[in-house]
Amino acid sequence: MEITKEQIEDYRETGLLFIPELFSTKEVAEMQAAVEDLSKQDIPGRILEKDKKTVRALHGCHNNSEIFDSLIRHPSLLASACEMLNSDVYIYQFKVNLKAAFSGDVWPWHQDYVFWDEEDGMPSPKALNVAVFLDECNEFNGPMYFIPGSHQQSLIHLGQKDSSEIPNNWESNVSAALKYSLDNNTIAKLTHKKGIVAPKGPAGSVLFFHSNLVHGSAPNISPYPRRLLIITYNSINNIPSFKGKPRPEFLVSRDHTPLKPLRGKVLI
Amino acid sequence: MEITKEQIEDYRETGLLFIPELFSTKEVAEMQAAVEDLSKQDIPGRILEKDKKTVRALHGCHNNSEIFDSLIRHPSLLASACEMLNSDVYIYQFKVNLKAAFSGDVWPWHQDYVFWDEEDGMPSPKALNVAVFLDECNEFNGPMYFIPGSHQQSLIHLGQKDSSEIPNNWESNVSAALKYSLDNNTIAKLTHKKGIVAPKGPAGSVLFFHSNLVHGSAPNISPYPRRLLIITYNSINNIPSFKGKPRPEFLVSRDHTPLKPLRGKVLI
Repeated sequence: MEITKEQIEDYRETGLLFIPELFSTKEVAEMQAAVEDLSKQDIPGRILEKDKKTVRALHGCHNNSEIFDSLIRHPSLLASACEMLNSDVYIYQFKVNLKAAFSGDVWPWHQDYVFWDEEDGMPSPKALNVAVFLDECNEFNGPMYFIPGSHQQSLIHLGQKDSSEIPNNWESNVSAALKYSLDNNTIAKLTHKKGIVAPKGPAGSVLFFHSNLVHGSAPNISPYPRRLLIITYNSINNIPSFKGKPRPEFLVSRDHTPLKPLRGKVLI
Repeated sequence: MEITKEQIEDYRETGLLFIPELFSTKEVAEMQAAVEDLSKQDIPGRILEKDKKTVRALHGCHNNSEIFDSLIRHPSLLASACEMLNSDVYIYQFKVNLKAAFSGDVWPWHQDYVFWDEEDGMPSPKALNVAVFLDECNEFNGPMYFIPGSHQQSLIHLGQKDSSEIPNNWESNVSAALKYSLDNNTIAKLTHKKGIVAPKGPAGSVLFFHSNLVHGSAPNISPYPRRLLIITYNSINNIPSFKGKPRPEFLVSRDHTPLKPLRGKVLI
């Protein structure tokens, strides 16, 4: 796959680009198997839901799995990311949000970049996410909601929270009680102008979205799992300063080597 | 409006019938104003969300409001209900679920009839709901999810809950921790066969659904309120026995007089 000029323009305008069924059923099956395998292991970076049983997310999987190490170098993803960011890129974060059937919890409205700025000292929002659907994403299983064009606002007021409720550690950046969520007034104003979109499609679909694009997702009360793999590419000209105590390596990669695309058969 | 034979057949098969925009914008505005008025009053039957601020639901509104007293006698609703239930009907319950923007909570998967059987001694499921959309219902504001055809299963296993979590009083029938919800396996099996539907449409749309139809809804994280008015009609041949201590009158009407349709201008 090569993205077109129109797609790039669309991405700059809306902050997102959806490519249905980029990966084949076989490729998805292999990635699902790798996720299942990692979910069973009590490794750092495995986050549980409030019920302390269901796996909420897996972080840093590209370091623990061959297929995910290949995925981050997949030419379709990598070339698009480089074009969108106008630079070579390295891997900043790799995670799988599992949003399990019946129990996957909410992700409050937020922008990703504020976390990377505040927690890691990332100089500018020259980073983007590539979400790979590991399950069909439908209207029932907690699809991501986006406010298109909201990335053009750069940073927006943060939610006023009772800080005693939210512990000051990296865990609070990956739980349902997010440290930097957006307040309701901001969301209401933004959606009044720009609406909400929730891209849906079969497993294997891919969604690029800007690091400042406002998004969230409702809990999953359906019997359908909604596993979503998210690769974050950062520009090699945008290395974080890591002020203070850096977050764990499985959350923020320290390897800033520019990624090179693989050739031939990439995943299977 | 008169419903057709095909619509009745469709209702019997699927357990639901959706009529978009039955009420005009003006009629909806009047009903919204009545709800707003009732929400401000500290009356019995007003239920709050877990935050103890947001109004979750209003019960028995037909007794506190002229427009809702007229609504339950609206010929389009009443005639359809009588035809679907093959009998004269009376008003059993009247409620408004407000599902407020940003805070409206989950309704777990359940069937209504089990509550009316267990709590009130309703002899058979010869009752139905008429839901009137007081706001646009869209994919973002917590629309009701239904498993079409699930009413044909009559009663299904109930969720195994830690009963210490759920108090044994009428409040537990109207909160997000429902007393008689369905277990995940049952929902997974049912949806595997029959799928899920979520009727969406403008304010003023109307949805008839069977008392045994399995339904639920996700929390509303959107900036759009999703106020839903629900009238429950019961057959006059299906009067509850009220075994034990009856629930409050605002939850279960004791007036079993068959309703007669109004003529001329009904609401405004």
